[in-house]
Amino acid sequence: MRNLTLLTDFYELTMMQAYHHAAETTEQGQRAVFDMFYRENPCGNGYAVAAGLAQLIDYIKNLRFGDADIEYLRSTGAFREPFLNYLKNFRFTGDIHAVPEGTVVFPGEPLVRVSAPLAEGQFIETALLNIINHQSLIATKAARVCWAAAGDTVFEFGLRRAQGPDAGIYGARAAMIGGCHATSNVLAGQLFDIPVRGTHAHSWIMSFDTELAAFRCYADLYPRVCILLTDTYDTLKSGVPNAITVFKEMKEKGITSALYGIRLDSGDLAYLSKCAREMLDAAGFTDAIISASSDLDENLITELKAQGAKITLWGVGTNLITSKECPAFGGVYKMAALSSGDGPWIPKIKLSENPVKVTNPGIKKIYRLYDSTTGKMKADLIMLADEALSNHEDLTIFDPLATWKRMTLPAGSFTIRELLEPVFVGGDCVYPERRVADIREYAEAERGTLWDEHKRLVNPHIMPVDLSQKLYDLKQTMITQARGR
Amino acid sequence: MRNLTLLTDFYELTMMQAYHHAAETTEQGQRAVFDMFYRENPCGNGYAVAAGLAQLIDYIKNLRFGDADIEYLRSTGAFREPFLNYLKNFRFTGDIHAVPEGTVVFPGEPLVRVSAPLAEGQFIETALLNIINHQSLIATKAARVCWAAAGDTVFEFGLRRAQGPDAGIYGARAAMIGGCHATSNVLAGQLFDIPVRGTHAHSWIMSFDTELAAFRCYADLYPRVCILLTDTYDTLKSGVPNAITVFKEMKEKGITSALYGIRLDSGDLAYLSKCAREMLDAAGFTDAIISASSDLDENLITELKAQGAKITLWGVGTNLITSKECPAFGGVYKMAALSSGDGPWIPKIKLSENPVKVTNPGIKKIYRLYDSTTGKMKADLIMLADEALSNHEDLTIFDPLATWKRMTLPAGSFTIRELLEPVFVGGDCVYPERRVADIREYAEAERGTLWDEHKRLVNPHIMPVDLSQKLYDLKQTMITQARGR
Repeated sequence: MRNLTLLTDFYELTMMQAYHHAAETTEQGQRAVFDMFYRENPCGNGYAVAAGLAQLIDYIKNLRFGDADIEYLRSTGAFREPFLNYLKNFRFTGDIHAVPEGTVVFPGEPLVRVSAPLAEGQFIETALLNIINHQSLIATKAARVCWAAAGDTVFEFGLRRAQGPDAGIYGARAAMIGGCHATSNVLAGQLFDIPVRGTHAHSWIMSFDTELAAFRCYADLYPRVCILLTDTYDTLKSGVPNAITVFKEMKEKGITSALYGIRLDSGDLAYLSKCAREMLDAAGFTDAIISASSDLDENLITELKAQGAKITLWGVGTNLITSKECPAFGGVYKMAALSSGDGPWIPKIKLSENPVKVTNPGIKKIYRLYDSTTGKMKADLIMLADEALSNHEDLTIFDPLATWKRMTLPAGSFTIRELLEPVFVGGDCVYPERRVADIREYAEAERGTLWDEHKRLVNPHIMPVDLSQKLYDLKQTMITQARGR
Repeated sequence: MRNLTLLTDFYELTMMQAYHHAAETTEQGQRAVFDMFYRENPCGNGYAVAAGLAQLIDYIKNLRFGDADIEYLRSTGAFREPFLNYLKNFRFTGDIHAVPEGTVVFPGEPLVRVSAPLAEGQFIETALLNIINHQSLIATKAARVCWAAAGDTVFEFGLRRAQGPDAGIYGARAAMIGGCHATSNVLAGQLFDIPVRGTHAHSWIMSFDTELAAFRCYADLYPRVCILLTDTYDTLKSGVPNAITVFKEMKEKGITSALYGIRLDSGDLAYLSKCAREMLDAAGFTDAIISASSDLDENLITELKAQGAKITLWGVGTNLITSKECPAFGGVYKMAALSSGDGPWIPKIKLSENPVKVTNPGIKKIYRLYDSTTGKMKADLIMLADEALSNHEDLTIFDPLATWKRMTLPAGSFTIRELLEPVFVGGDCVYPERRVADIREYAEAERGTLWDEHKRLVNPHIMPVDLSQKLYDLKQTMITQARGR
């Protein structure tokens, strides 16, 4: 396990030293609650897919300032010995709640809630955001791509264009959570027990005197999964006919494949796939797969399908692994409450000129409301942690920015589920390890609780994320007080 | 050092097994030359900045299939025992040439040239592309941002929005190569000996009863570098006046800072910075710095400067660390020549419907031509490795896609420099380690060899990258032959 303890912004450490100094001198440390949330779904999607929690857990568990780290910090000249001594035995001792990986989430909801001594809670901000932002971004993008593929198989092929090794490794993991079926990334396959796939490149063809010889040799070595790349010289004049020749030879030899067919990697994929389908069918290879992998994303897949492209396996690279159209998930980490050690929690708010940027104060939880009949999601409700919610009474919820938008759910017409689960308690991890395959399955079920209207790629229907009356009132009071200052 | 040996696309291994099989059965291994190059400068820039070579070297040096790796590969069912045995002792034994990190480069030029047994040269493709693509992307983006900042200080602040830990770590490294002056990323600071910077967040302010108390405490602890964040409540009504109060108190106490001032993180940065400048100046703090850090990129910095914003220190986050507008560097890795062991090198070409996508065949080198008088770059010339070039004779170069565009450089009017340097010879690294600070300085000198017209952010002047007559002729002949097939 790599030590990522110093994977932090310098200001976390300067603030931390100050908090530590204050705690030492007042003999009473402050505690704080921080929320990690985001303000806008990536790519104009109707939801996001939370991911990265397993790596956040690893990071928290492995927080250790080694001797070399301390020495390095000393060399910056910004830190005093009492603080450096404190770092030697630094461990995370707080509590963390989070929504499970694969959960469908919406803007404004805490995906992670940290309650810890102020210095600790502050310190973990940067790495927490880095990890959750990245994986949630790619999981969400993958969900879009898989939605466009509409049940077809989607492979993640982006390692060579990922932003560094981790972006490839954890991006592949997140892509699986978002719905992909396999990755080309062997290291990700090994680390996360996810299926790896791939056949050959143009260089394979170029290393033989003829395309046919290259195909023949490949089929000979890999008869079980045999997808031949047909565009090195000319897809329809050379690639597809040569592939058909080889498929015939395999048939004559009595070789059966679990998966065989062709891959298109350039040219007009709609036109080429339709022609190739006809040629393969005419030769009797109606079960040969046509796969494609050329600058694909959810929009191009949608358009190709609308034009009747005969592709059923999509290899998606650059645009998925970088979330090209929107390469950052804007997760933030904001203080929600503060306590002077043994004192009560004081809710905290961050104002902004922009109403959607004003934070929700206090320690909060999220209830998800489902329609009892359909099982589909109705809304999310953010409440203060000490509030109770029952589905045995009528519930009226309202839009916190347009309070005249109200909806009453009759008693018994809805079911409720709390989203935040305990992950660390008093510094100890209480969260079970989950297999990526299981998270993927859970994420699929999560998306199943959304109506298709919420999953539309463009201008999706917006899911209400409302505040309880008590939380709403607290927020308004605090805004008024703060503006009066 | 992490073992990234399995950081590869699955198809590299399936192809590699086949090459290994062929080499075993014919008792003669093929050797191949591969070029890594790209086809388009990111973000519409006039050039790119090569980066990542040091990490590529680490990767190559550390290539080892451990027992667990072999076991994992066996478990996929795709590999036979002779190949798995071969992997146990696998090392890279080939030659690598590359342009030094920080070099200004252009589309079509090999940034890395690999000459190795076919299986080895093929295997390293994916990780090589991942590493070089990522860092060259961010170095290029940083060069754009620093060009817009026009001599102001630029800090890299993007770790929390980077695509995973490596994207933050190596992104910070690349940003320094591209011209940034420091990073917030402490781990990058430690690993690469680059300056780290940062002060405090909104949460710092929120952990105190008042903004003034928060500023006071910070200035007390960090008088040496004291940049106060002024937008938690209200920049002009609260933040700047409170900062001035604290600066006055520091002055009264006789405390002098190496760097002090304010940071703007929201609102209209042009307006706020001009007002803040007036307020600071009126209070006698004419040397107080105004820094800013709110969704900045090269375009916004350019516009803010055009509007007379009084900002001289720019903290650039998300848009730099993800190269948001263009988050992938399209580097590719193509076979250029092949030899059947002891036989001669056979040049190889990959065709495409798109003329700029047709590869340059053969083993090549790059000469850079400079004007003798100004020292500015005139053009790059790609030649076959066995060709000679002299600046004692007139040289006529021409555009390979529009051959009527010709330019004759009179003898003595130009100087020449070969760009590709040996990095590995027979599997041994012969390349000296370079400090990031030195690479940064070299990169700055490199950009100094470009006229400003090549550095313009929008529609820059295009640098000619031409082919020697011999290489051009070889390419045309091979295209004709291949199309005739």
